[in-house]
Amino acid sequence: MKIFETKTAPNPRRVRMFMAEKGLLDKAEFIEIDLQKGENLTPEFVARNPMKKVPVMELDDGTCIAETMAICRYFEESYPDTPSLLGDTPLEKAQLEQWLRWIELFFFMPTGMCFQHSTGYFKDRMNPIPEWGEEAGKQAASFMDFLDRHLKGRKFIYGDSITAADITALCVLDFAKVVKIRISPEQKNLQAWYDHMKERPSAKV
Amino acid sequence: MKIFETKTAPNPRRVRMFMAEKGLLDKAEFIEIDLQKGENLTPEFVARNPMKKVPVMELDDGTCIAETMAICRYFEESYPDTPSLLGDTPLEKAQLEQWLRWIELFFFMPTGMCFQHSTGYFKDRMNPIPEWGEEAGKQAASFMDFLDRHLKGRKFIYGDSITAADITALCVLDFAKVVKIRISPEQKNLQAWYDHMKERPSAKV
Repeated sequence: MKIFETKTAPNPRRVRMFMAEKGLLDKAEFIEIDLQKGENLTPEFVARNPMKKVPVMELDDGTCIAETMAICRYFEESYPDTPSLLGDTPLEKAQLEQWLRWIELFFFMPTGMCFQHSTGYFKDRMNPIPEWGEEAGKQAASFMDFLDRHLKGRKFIYGDSITAADITALCVLDFAKVVKIRISPEQKNLQAWYDHMKERPSAKV
Repeated sequence: MKIFETKTAPNPRRVRMFMAEKGLLDKAEFIEIDLQKGENLTPEFVARNPMKKVPVMELDDGTCIAETMAICRYFEESYPDTPSLLGDTPLEKAQLEQWLRWIELFFFMPTGMCFQHSTGYFKDRMNPIPEWGEEAGKQAASFMDFLDRHLKGRKFIYGDSITAADITALCVLDFAKVVKIRISPEQKNLQAWYDHMKERPSAKV
């Protein structure tokens, strides 16, 4: 199968890290898409993903699956003998979904909005509103305080091994540096978790 | 178990509809939270969901699960003998996750942003930016064109029975009326799907 992605973007990195933690990186051929050149706006790309986003996976029969968590779920469900990253029991699956949604909605989304609306990176194809970008950046920073308190005495965001929640939070934290949102010196729990996560081989793929 | 919700809000309705399609409505006691009075900001509520959002479910042992899709996933995984609303095979689960994400990110999110930023409904607790509300409203309307084209010749958004994708799209469409985003006369496929969905008993709970 093929994964169309952009190496430096946070969502493709979530997929690569997810696959690396399962030992599945060799299952796909990765094809680089240059977002700034608009390679995601070509008819060929839009046929694979009408939302024009990376990553999108193409199976060998031509079936396409867009959206980071859809691709991750495909690997989670297709390779049940690999380490589970989305929970095992109904309660674990539900609580992990809660954490994933919290990180996506209250950290990733405002960080992405801050990036799009304050840097004007995609201004050729959207209408950036800097005031909204600034407000969104404040929301993202506020979630980091919450996460820091949650991580007190914990090695992972949920449970006692790495999950999609840790992977997502790490990718957002690294991405947030672009808009100067960084771990503050007071956020010692978040910093310890971050340092520990950065040591994993999967953080380097 | 208990579900703390707001009857008129779109996310709690997604959960009720999901439960109704599985015949599980009688599994929970529903407790109304008045968002405009700020009942979701009390210490008791925040202890259940630090993100201060409805719905949140409390199991009999006191464990809380926030986030609509986390609650839905709990029911999907805990009651495997009820109709599947999140797919059966790995591919179905992945493709449904893709559709859910598309509807959430490119339809529900901008509709919600349009509501929050153009009506000022929550202006006591956030900083509404009307220009962003208007832009978000345009994004939501554009997704409806995409959905109309997709629904040509289809009875459901994905597969041949109702799923969480249909439930979510219906709840967003009804909610979107509040900000005057409505199905246009040209969107005949979307209108036919909507009329068909509205006939289901689950659409009335």
